Amino acid sequence: MTVQVGILGATGAVGQRFVQLLDGHPIFELACVTASDDSVGRTYRNAAEWRLSSEIPAFVADRVVRETDPAAVPDDVDLIFSSLPSDIAADVEPAFLEEGYVMSSNSSNDRMAPDIPLTIPEINPSHLGLIEVQREQRGWDGALVKNPNCSTITMVPTLAALDEFGLESVNVSTLQAVSGAGYSGVAAMEIMDNAIPHIGNEERKMETEARKLLGDFDGAELELHDADVAASCNRIPTIDGHLENVFTGLASNPEPAAVRDAMRNFESADLHSSPEQLIKVFGEGRPDRPQPRLDRSYADGMGVVAGGVEETTDGIQYNCLAHNTLRGAAGASLLNAELLVEEGWV
Amino acid sequence: MTVQVGILGATGAVGQRFVQLLDGHPIFELACVTASDDSVGRTYRNAAEWRLSSEIPAFVADRVVRETDPAAVPDDVDLIFSSLPSDIAADVEPAFLEEGYVMSSNSSNDRMAPDIPLTIPEINPSHLGLIEVQREQRGWDGALVKNPNCSTITMVPTLAALDEFGLESVNVSTLQAVSGAGYSGVAAMEIMDNAIPHIGNEERKMETEARKLLGDFDGAELELHDADVAASCNRIPTIDGHLENVFTGLASNPEPAAVRDAMRNFESADLHSSPEQLIKVFGEGRPDRPQPRLDRSYADGMGVVAGGVEETTDGIQYNCLAHNTLRGAAGASLLNAELLVEEGWV
Amino acid sequence: MTVQVGILGATGAVGQRFVQLLDGHPIFELACVTASDDSVGRTYRNAAEWRLSSEIPAFVADRVVRETDPAAVPDDVDLIFSSLPSDIAADVEPAFLEEGYVMSSNSSNDRMAPDIPLTIPEINPSHLGLIEVQREQRGWDGALVKNPNCSTITMVPTLAALDEFGLESVNVSTLQAVSGAGYSGVAAMEIMDNAIPHIGNEERKMETEARKLLGDFDGAELELHDADVAASCNRIPTIDGHLENVFTGLASNPEPAAVRDAMRNFESADLHSSPEQLIKVFGEGRPDRPQPRLDRSYADGMGVVAGGVEETTDGIQYNCLAHNTLRGAAGASLLNAELLVEEGWV
Amino acid sequence: MTVQVGILGATGAVGQRFVQLLDGHPIFELACVTASDDSVGRTYRNAAEWRLSSEIPAFVADRVVRETDPAAVPDDVDLIFSSLPSDIAADVEPAFLEEGYVMSSNSSNDRMAPDIPLTIPEINPSHLGLIEVQREQRGWDGALVKNPNCSTITMVPTLAALDEFGLESVNVSTLQAVSGAGYSGVAAMEIMDNAIPHIGNEERKMETEARKLLGDFDGAELELHDADVAASCNRIPTIDGHLENVFTGLASNPEPAAVRDAMRNFESADLHSSPEQLIKVFGEGRPDRPQPRLDRSYADGMGVVAGGVEETTDGIQYNCLAHNTLRGAAGASLLNAELLVEEGWV
Repeated sequence: MTVQVGILGATGAVGQRFVQLLDGHPIFELACVTASDDSVGRTYRNAAEWRLSSEIPAFVADRVVRETDPAAVPDDVDLIFSSLPSDIAADVEPAFLEEGYVMSSNSSNDRMAPDIPLTIPEINPSHLGLIEVQREQRGWDGALVKNPNCSTITMVPTLAALDEFGLESVNVSTLQAVSGAGYSGVAAMEIMDNAIPHIGNEERKMETEARKLLGDFDGAELELHDADVAASCNRIPTIDGHLENVFTGLASNPEPAAVRDAMRNFESADLHSSPEQLIKVFGEGRPDRPQPRLDRSYADGMGVVAGGVEETTDGIQYNCLAHNTLRGAAGASLLNAELLVEEGWV
Repeated sequence: MTVQVGILGATGAVGQRFVQLLDGHPIFELACVTASDDSVGRTYRNAAEWRLSSEIPAFVADRVVRETDPAAVPDDVDLIFSSLPSDIAADVEPAFLEEGYVMSSNSSNDRMAPDIPLTIPEINPSHLGLIEVQREQRGWDGALVKNPNCSTITMVPTLAALDEFGLESVNVSTLQAVSGAGYSGVAAMEIMDNAIPHIGNEERKMETEARKLLGDFDGAELELHDADVAASCNRIPTIDGHLENVFTGLASNPEPAAVRDAMRNFESADLHSSPEQLIKVFGEGRPDRPQPRLDRSYADGMGVVAGGVEETTDGIQYNCLAHNTLRGAAGASLLNAELLVEEGWV
Repeated sequence: MTVQVGILGATGAVGQRFVQLLDGHPIFELACVTASDDSVGRTYRNAAEWRLSSEIPAFVADRVVRETDPAAVPDDVDLIFSSLPSDIAADVEPAFLEEGYVMSSNSSNDRMAPDIPLTIPEINPSHLGLIEVQREQRGWDGALVKNPNCSTITMVPTLAALDEFGLESVNVSTLQAVSGAGYSGVAAMEIMDNAIPHIGNEERKMETEARKLLGDFDGAELELHDADVAASCNRIPTIDGHLENVFTGLASNPEPAAVRDAMRNFESADLHSSPEQLIKVFGEGRPDRPQPRLDRSYADGMGVVAGGVEETTDGIQYNCLAHNTLRGAAGASLLNAELLVEEGWV
Repeated sequence: MTVQVGILGATGAVGQRFVQLLDGHPIFELACVTASDDSVGRTYRNAAEWRLSSEIPAFVADRVVRETDPAAVPDDVDLIFSSLPSDIAADVEPAFLEEGYVMSSNSSNDRMAPDIPLTIPEINPSHLGLIEVQREQRGWDGALVKNPNCSTITMVPTLAALDEFGLESVNVSTLQAVSGAGYSGVAAMEIMDNAIPHIGNEERKMETEARKLLGDFDGAELELHDADVAASCNRIPTIDGHLENVFTGLASNPEPAAVRDAMRNFESADLHSSPEQLIKVFGEGRPDRPQPRLDRSYADGMGVVAGGVEETTDGIQYNCLAHNTLRGAAGASLLNAELLVEEGWV
């Protein structure tokens, strides 16, 4: 079975990661790339200025970039990936949904809308059921699923693993890589020999998205998880890989070893791009791990790595890490698309 | 009035900062520098390999480096600064104390000893009273005062300002500069495009030292502050300046504006190296400050800079920053020495 | 004597350095700042987003930004500094010159025009004589002087010092800081863990500007120096300070010691912003200097630092360094303005 | 056919690259790892503190580290790789040679000895003939071949390609990565926001090794190439990949296009680890390449990448790049070992 796919916003930092991940994918075949007006009509090779150290894949290099408009997409395309800036996505996505496209979107608009599933396949696949609600309420023929922000994705699998111990509160500090802001999002003069606190709207995203991902869906409505979440988000001079310090308040009082086991044994999904072991955990002997440069490529950038698990007065503190443009962006949308196929929405 | 001083461990990263700060100091006059055996007998210029961008001060360049031993120190020296590695300091410091020297030490050994004052002059000057206890218990003629770890110093002035709101708990994440590990403490290959969590023993130091600094001294015994403190300490690729994300639990429920005011109005000390305003606070308009490269030089590196003050469910979160080798190390010892002089211990 | 000055393009990276250098200047008094349309009408504080670690000077913070147009400049302004992008400068500068303004410009347009002096006061002050030629040919009432590119300025003082040995050829490689491209000129993702060769048009600028600066002006025409110059320009991950490796072919065969002496003894100019010793030279004992972070602040960023002088088969190789936004840009224009005043053109 | 191999100095930065490259190698099977005394008797996993982002290969993880001594090496080992520090290698290598081992060494001692082949298989395989001379003069049963320094290897393939145009002189500036100095060779505080000129003995190595590699071996004696070579070597803040700016003086006057063709068509060797195309060349459209982060992985780190080819007054200037710990160190020794096998010396 092959599914023809298109990428909206294919020339940017996340768009290039989509292209890279589709190279050799067993199900998805790239049929169409779109970008902003100044790229339309040029070959992808010319428009994208390929910036990854791997070679630009042959199947996309000479493809002509199209307009970001349903009318410009070939008829046989069944599934759309979106990595558009959120303000543009807010305009463009409904047009595709009305035309009946199934869309897996990395754009941040509408992530908290009550009828749009925000999904990590290993965590909350059942939330896809919101698509029925969405179709009814919006009159769409298509289906829209969103993945969370990169900083949220890094943390949530470990929180899900801890939920058995009664998750009550989370304080989290992030050390985020520059690629999270897009290719030109951070000037060298801003970040060299420096760190920038309180970046963008990352903090509010983490606080709300985490509660939605961990929430209960009863088939009709989604109830947010009731843990208090407070986040402090910092940009640091790393290229890829978000490292996060997590302090949790827990109802029960687990030993660090039990927490490490819960993380290690947290079940992954049976999807092509899902790692065999979702969360790799470093033990007491390596408290200095995970580290961005050494650990971001775990499971080809699709896994989460944790470590430094220790007791605090009323809970557990630990560190976690994921590759922000793979597991945290393009890979997250790809996984959601694989889930959509698996569950018969495509 | 002039006080002759010596520096133990004068050639290292902190030692060079001591030398820099003593250049033009109105009270202290450098009479003696010591270092490890391979430097003894060489000029300071040759032994230190001066690494600051300011010129090596003329008053020290041709001075001969002496042994780190009371016998090698000239008779007229009244006050000793120590920036020795803690294992060496544990051996050497008592020898100087027995000889009657007054010592202001940056070394981490014995900071939590119940009879040794751990002091930040603007925060807990009254703890100097422990010197009487110390003399009685140890039979020393001298006096030993310690300053806390650089990561502790960065945070504690802001916590002291918050104490009026009922400080109950602290979760703190640090983004620490490489100079905190000494000149060769962090290899370039470790930290470039990377961050290292759970460094050294910084976390335990922050958790215990903060409670001692904020504790009550009744003239005989010191009681630790009863706030729960949990720390997560990270090294990042910055040269100087520790940035910290602080989440506090508070008994009362202050507005961010009240917290900013409490920080801004927190009283400084009337000492030569103490800034006029101890804590500079950025308001709502600049949530992206403080930043290490832009703010570490506030008040010649002797101040603390805070920002990003926001409410959380049960308290306040904010960010703070200080220069780790000035306010956080050499400058901290210097300030303690100025306090010792001011209060008549020298 | 006080001269009222204006800065065109005052909010950018070089513009902020102009403001910083004018703080406390004995002759120049800032009367006017201009910037692009989106800044016009706002206070400098709001428009500039001050990015230097020193505080924004009080004398400029609340000044209203004006249009970059002669009509918008107050009548009592006698001298204009320009740090406009070269394409804008090409349009705007003639308008000011026709209105009779004296202008010291850092913009790169027209630097090689035969009737426009390209000047470093310590090297070729006599080239100011071209102003007469310029007035005659262009019918301007004003006077326009340019300073060279930052990478050229770094090297030319040392070449001028070597000219007594018969300078025949120059191969030069640069290691340039990101600030040379303006505040947002280099994205973090481009330069972290990376270097970029063959940047911009720097190479052609170095090759031509150097020959003009070292050329002979006979009172009527300027003859370029006949040395062959080939340059290779690289951007590296440093914030400020250009380091350059220079290989010279010389007609005579000097010892390294003689070359070091020629550099050290090269005469500086008697102007406020000119350093007492123009070129600081490290000897054989410190072949690893100059280094950008340690040496860019020599003489408050207005000096040149050289080192690593060694013989080659047909000449001398060495390294040199200067602060690219001080001596290499804003400071260069300021020095030229001081020369214009000194020589009576203002 | 399988050859049992040992690695001397297997725990260091280059040693770990040897281990990585031997993982899955079709001919070589790792039989033995040695290291310094404090590692002897420990498992490789414990002794090496694996620092590459790939996982530590299973075939070596639990192997016990042995002494660096012929007596400690198993009998069936036929070929030895050495990445010892040069001072230790100078003592240890002869002991292995006397015992009859064939050794491919990356250590810098004795590279210029007239009877020791310094080889890059694609450049000067015939120099292996020096082994006969070596055996005769030194009475060794074994055979010793050296590879050049990483900065030399980066440049020499392109110079070999240019030799048809009459290579007369070379001025070369390097921008070298920190991994070239070993894992702890460069402190973060030395290199962050900085560059260090005139490093180590790299310049003399480049100047002499290049002439030996390009020299003529008549079966009895080796004559150095007569080009003048002057090098200026700089450390910059990159992790892997040396970038070099090369200015050549040539007897003939080729067009840049002819030079690019000569580089592209330069023949590779028919060995397992040799790339199909030895030199990848960027054309006029991408003068900003090669760049370390984007191009160091060309041909799995075993190729050379060139670009920016331009005419100068008497020759050609261009840039080149190679991965310094793969093609420039462990991979270079591996290739030499493959050549030794191919030519029947093992």
